[in-house]
Amino acid sequence: MPIPFSQAPTLSLPPASAATGSGFTPSNPDYENRVRDSFARQGAMRLLGARLTEVRPGYCVIELPYRLDLTQQHGYVHAGIVSAIADSAGGYAGFSLFPADASVLTVEYKLNLLAPAGGERLIAQAEVVKAGRTLAITRGEVYAETGSKRTLCAIMQQTLIVLTGKQDA
Amino acid sequence: MPIPFSQAPTLSLPPASAATGSGFTPSNPDYENRVRDSFARQGAMRLLGARLTEVRPGYCVIELPYRLDLTQQHGYVHAGIVSAIADSAGGYAGFSLFPADASVLTVEYKLNLLAPAGGERLIAQAEVVKAGRTLAITRGEVYAETGSKRTLCAIMQQTLIVLTGKQDA
Amino acid sequence: MPIPFSQAPTLSLPPASAATGSGFTPSNPDYENRVRDSFARQGAMRLLGARLTEVRPGYCVIELPYRLDLTQQHGYVHAGIVSAIADSAGGYAGFSLFPADASVLTVEYKLNLLAPAGGERLIAQAEVVKAGRTLAITRGEVYAETGSKRTLCAIMQQTLIVLTGKQDA
Amino acid sequence: MPIPFSQAPTLSLPPASAATGSGFTPSNPDYENRVRDSFARQGAMRLLGARLTEVRPGYCVIELPYRLDLTQQHGYVHAGIVSAIADSAGGYAGFSLFPADASVLTVEYKLNLLAPAGGERLIAQAEVVKAGRTLAITRGEVYAETGSKRTLCAIMQQTLIVLTGKQDA
Repeated sequence: MPIPFSQAPTLSLPPASAATGSGFTPSNPDYENRVRDSFARQGAMRLLGARLTEVRPGYCVIELPYRLDLTQQHGYVHAGIVSAIADSAGGYAGFSLFPADASVLTVEYKLNLLAPAGGERLIAQAEVVKAGRTLAITRGEVYAETGSKRTLCAIMQQTLIVLTGKQDA
Repeated sequence: MPIPFSQAPTLSLPPASAATGSGFTPSNPDYENRVRDSFARQGAMRLLGARLTEVRPGYCVIELPYRLDLTQQHGYVHAGIVSAIADSAGGYAGFSLFPADASVLTVEYKLNLLAPAGGERLIAQAEVVKAGRTLAITRGEVYAETGSKRTLCAIMQQTLIVLTGKQDA
Repeated sequence: MPIPFSQAPTLSLPPASAATGSGFTPSNPDYENRVRDSFARQGAMRLLGARLTEVRPGYCVIELPYRLDLTQQHGYVHAGIVSAIADSAGGYAGFSLFPADASVLTVEYKLNLLAPAGGERLIAQAEVVKAGRTLAITRGEVYAETGSKRTLCAIMQQTLIVLTGKQDA
Repeated sequence: MPIPFSQAPTLSLPPASAATGSGFTPSNPDYENRVRDSFARQGAMRLLGARLTEVRPGYCVIELPYRLDLTQQHGYVHAGIVSAIADSAGGYAGFSLFPADASVLTVEYKLNLLAPAGGERLIAQAEVVKAGRTLAITRGEVYAETGSKRTLCAIMQQTLIVLTGKQDA
């Protein structure tokens, strides 16, 4: 095992979903279709086999089944692939709150890898921490799941930019 | 106002404290005294006027009353000062879980500034997300508080290293 | 164009290669074969079509030809894919300096996206800034290249951990 | 010594100054006075004893003499104080390129600590990597200097926002 963590509490982080469903009002009532359409245009998500499993205002979940062709040299999912689903989850969490005439771009993100990204599938969830007119900031987590057992394997902090007047497609 | 955020839900983040008090067992029962002694040796915290207000296993809170000599050019607390209390809160959240013969050092951190750090005081809280034998990873938030009203003004993600066999003082 | 940069000097960053070839002595004389073997075991790099084009002590370059199935919703290479080659370039820059009995893992990285990742191919280069017994820190850049014209499209800062006594495969 | 680095080449990074003086044209010819006036309004820099020693278009250097009241628990300069001068150096590197009617704010930054921040003084230098209409991205380094000997002790990557129409003071 890569980084030998001596303590890994089952619930070291409150689930992001606990914080959502209350705070944000989407400015575009059609936000879910818009997010799903945009996700469907991401060739990279299709190549990796990622699926968008949940969209709520300011919150998004993406699943990625484990495949050997997604791995780094030790057989775990490559950090860049982990970041790809974390980045998309964060980007669409933000995009769900954007006006209908705006598009989204990632300005930057930082990812910490906490445990090997193994298991049967990865689950990336992200939520908006702050939504502004120009920038949005998100946090995300990636879990490695086997059966119903989840291990936190990465955390992300991300900055998005609102591209007003730019079509998403 | 610096970054014009159109939406700032009152509780955009679950309070870190909701996640603590359960997961972590300190390896050193005297962890609180150890953290407080170490904090008292930080000349920088004294210079800034910061106080350590809460220590629990894997969790730490630091308060900083507003002063004009802590500011940047617009009169808000300087980002570096905001990061100083966030970094110390994260470092001591981690240190509270370390063995009695180990010291702590910050490897790196990333800070996002979400709103002006004004108000009567700043409250930095941080919690350990993962505690390992070599590294510990934390997340933190800084709030600007006026009376009992809190505004989230910064979030942090941090990596610490466990310096085994090194005295803290 | 996503982020409208008004000024983009042709050579805003000194090429990393200017800093290499001098500072580092690999502890393993067979470092190049070791890096190439490890890279060849990264299923993700094969899936993306990435090639390792240069390895020197503390320095590594990876190329990625543009493909539609690597893109985000606007047709540029997905930030996660950009980060995948930047992360591997940084990881192998570090690994080139590691002892023969050690493996490498990414602890964390941060990526800023500066311009659309378009063009005919991406070039990720990374170099070690500091190589320690436990940790190594790298910096990297990703360029979008069309013909011989290069545009800087991402910069990275990364922390690696040396896994002593762990086989790479 | 905190992080035992086995290899620390004297010049592991090309000096940022090698990359400047060529690329950027300040939109405000009075950029230097503007930067110096703004710096002089930062109460925090005065409290810490920091001095602005060099400003060129897209480039800035800040010096900080060592003092005991700037330290963490081991007697080195506190990471937050290191980040304060790195953040200001980056912010003013960016601000030097901004139009006369714009102000600057830090969106986020990430700092890696590479070696103990000791010595007689710290030197923070930062340069703009990309200057846009809305955002600017910088990189910075902090050196610990004793006599004429420099040790690289921190590196930073930073995102700034251009606040158009906002007075700096």
